[in-house]
Amino acid sequence: MGQGKMKLGLFLMGTGHHIASWRHANIPAKSAESFAFFQEIARIAEKGKLDMLFLSDGLSFDKHSHPAELVRFEPLTLLGALSVVTSHIGLAATATTTYNEPFHIARKFLSLDHLSGGRSAWNVVTSYYQTEARNFNAKQHLDHSIRYKRAEEFVEVVKGLWDSWEEGAVLCDKDSGQYFDESKLHSLHHQGEFFSVEGPLNSSRSPQGRPVIVQAGSSEEGISLAAKTADVIFTAQQTLEGAQAFYKKVKEKASQFGRSPEEIKIMPGLAIYTGRTEEEAENKYSDLQKLITPEVGLQILSEYLGDFDLSPYPLDGPLPSDIPETNMNQSRRKLLIELADRENMTIRELSIHVAGSRGHRIIFGNPQQIADQLEEWFVNKACDGFNLMLPYFPDSLRDFVELVVPELQKRGLFREEYEGATLRENLGLREPEYRYARKGVEV
Amino acid sequence: MGQGKMKLGLFLMGTGHHIASWRHANIPAKSAESFAFFQEIARIAEKGKLDMLFLSDGLSFDKHSHPAELVRFEPLTLLGALSVVTSHIGLAATATTTYNEPFHIARKFLSLDHLSGGRSAWNVVTSYYQTEARNFNAKQHLDHSIRYKRAEEFVEVVKGLWDSWEEGAVLCDKDSGQYFDESKLHSLHHQGEFFSVEGPLNSSRSPQGRPVIVQAGSSEEGISLAAKTADVIFTAQQTLEGAQAFYKKVKEKASQFGRSPEEIKIMPGLAIYTGRTEEEAENKYSDLQKLITPEVGLQILSEYLGDFDLSPYPLDGPLPSDIPETNMNQSRRKLLIELADRENMTIRELSIHVAGSRGHRIIFGNPQQIADQLEEWFVNKACDGFNLMLPYFPDSLRDFVELVVPELQKRGLFREEYEGATLRENLGLREPEYRYARKGVEV
Repeated sequence: MGQGKMKLGLFLMGTGHHIASWRHANIPAKSAESFAFFQEIARIAEKGKLDMLFLSDGLSFDKHSHPAELVRFEPLTLLGALSVVTSHIGLAATATTTYNEPFHIARKFLSLDHLSGGRSAWNVVTSYYQTEARNFNAKQHLDHSIRYKRAEEFVEVVKGLWDSWEEGAVLCDKDSGQYFDESKLHSLHHQGEFFSVEGPLNSSRSPQGRPVIVQAGSSEEGISLAAKTADVIFTAQQTLEGAQAFYKKVKEKASQFGRSPEEIKIMPGLAIYTGRTEEEAENKYSDLQKLITPEVGLQILSEYLGDFDLSPYPLDGPLPSDIPETNMNQSRRKLLIELADRENMTIRELSIHVAGSRGHRIIFGNPQQIADQLEEWFVNKACDGFNLMLPYFPDSLRDFVELVVPELQKRGLFREEYEGATLRENLGLREPEYRYARKGVEV
Repeated sequence: MGQGKMKLGLFLMGTGHHIASWRHANIPAKSAESFAFFQEIARIAEKGKLDMLFLSDGLSFDKHSHPAELVRFEPLTLLGALSVVTSHIGLAATATTTYNEPFHIARKFLSLDHLSGGRSAWNVVTSYYQTEARNFNAKQHLDHSIRYKRAEEFVEVVKGLWDSWEEGAVLCDKDSGQYFDESKLHSLHHQGEFFSVEGPLNSSRSPQGRPVIVQAGSSEEGISLAAKTADVIFTAQQTLEGAQAFYKKVKEKASQFGRSPEEIKIMPGLAIYTGRTEEEAENKYSDLQKLITPEVGLQILSEYLGDFDLSPYPLDGPLPSDIPETNMNQSRRKLLIELADRENMTIRELSIHVAGSRGHRIIFGNPQQIADQLEEWFVNKACDGFNLMLPYFPDSLRDFVELVVPELQKRGLFREEYEGATLRENLGLREPEYRYARKGVEV
């Protein structure tokens, strides 16, 4: 295969990826802000040797939002806590470049990296919800292209700050009284279009060189930014062919930026329903789907189509053909319109499907069938692994870890033990080059 | 006494409050970014029934900074981690209102509050170092008075966001499918001079009503802000009379704002050297003082005097009388000039003293002598407790917990067991009134 082992992230969003998961009988009430709930998930995920926990995030909501978006832990404080009860699994959090400052973001992820011994990862997003603007002194959300320009500079500044202290810069030489080696400390002196950041950062070099950078977004700007700067790409892909094309495109683009294709791991999101039998798996899905109210389904579909009002159209008719492009979420909108067209779905079918999958591929089956489907994409260069969007916690995760992981291990597709101590080592990523390696810049 | 028990916070700054603490033989090398080091401190502090851990912070440094300011954990991620290994002690972190956004700050401290079961506290500062500006897109630090105006509005917005969700707003009613009660969710709609924040916050009501607010700063603006909004005041006081005057002033000011004096706990910073004998205590101090180089001492004194250059003046002469007022740190500057004058200190003596105490009072003694001094201030209405600035960790803390705490308990001055589950309960503070208690505002 030449790709090494499959990489598996665990997408964490409240009680589960399924929008009605909180209504499932097995889920403890009010889990959204229960540390014990997340601790159990983290421990099962680590027992299953998964690569990383992957926390979604957002900075606004409205009354129609996924329940996981209403009240939730702030990701960095939660991951700080989870760093104590885990020892190998990566800890990835989402943070936007649109309503943050590079110094804070650089610092928090590097602090988490020191707490966890090199297991921190930052999922870079540019803010999907327009309403976030109103919580941050802005009347209007920035345009998509400006958000991406800002994001690119933001990531560069963060990487620059992460390189403030060279390896070995902190001496703590008690005899001489020299605390650090001045020649190994570097200011950034960044002056750019969006940011002016002097540095240096008050956090020493990462145990893994620097925290892992994850990115989502399948727009042209998103792909370009990811190919240039990301270690891991999180994407929504529905078909093998589509995923292969995306995979090829990103890896080629990375080459154009002078990077080796192995340096970027592509992990599509994937909702998985595992049963001991195929029927059991399908029942788990349909039981959850029944808990979705029509209002919730339509609301989500409308949002994914750029807040397009679907109420004038018959529920059992097709999607209208005149849904306009908007500033937000362009790539997901396109994928959904194509899906409805390909599968000949009505608005009702699409809305319940979308509410259940939230734009990601869903697979069902017994452990062998699940493993077959993961293997097919992996060996056919459609991905380097998956971001598991499991429907309800902790049951779906326990199913995956106890039933699917052993099957993948038997096939040689997934690790038996963690390869290293840091997330970067487990993902099979090299330590990034240190920017001041051959210079002698002073603070 | 009528003041209840004494409240004790533990100031946490790297390897200890003493600037040369990192050179002490008993301190493990490179503790600044070692979670194990902080975990041990937290556990000893909780064994001693202390009220809270109190993390200092800053967003810039230069090569002359206290080693604890060079590389350090980001406080909220560290406290997230410490919330898991503690169960009663409060978790306070410093965060500036000058280079942050209210939505982020409200969210992080409330997230920590949910992680810890109601033990979170925010130490509100307005940024002391001018150099912080240059890490946040600003050429110049804001003026003192603008910083305080911004801080006041910032704190109001944060408190408003903390009131987004009423108690009992999150229903999780699985049968009906109702996740929350819309009538108990409130947007803020804040439009002010510095901030425009819509809300609501994506974090439910605090287990302690709201996180505890701590403030330092003894300038007129600082006192006014604290009297209006703080639950705890951290201050630098050198003399019993000065502390009593400050205590009276703040409590009276609080009354003017319609608050009960018991609602504000005043806790001066205090460096403590405990020995089994007085001589042992004094030796601990002088051993550490010997590790301070003259350069370090002068640098700190100069900084505390508003970056006043002392190099033209004889080290063994008095402070010059023409040190100008500046925009930063006015109250500490005044206290130092008064101290030098009162004690007739030379620049050298003052600089080594300042480097050792960093502007805070130092006391020495055997356990009885330490307890006497704490008791004197406490019973004479100079304070409601102390913020312990212990010279080197974990030894100084172990000394305090094993030698002084039992003496204080024997005298009935300090708790034998935590009174409650939340920080607010342990501090003896009422739950704050809920702003929407009698209104029916909609999101």
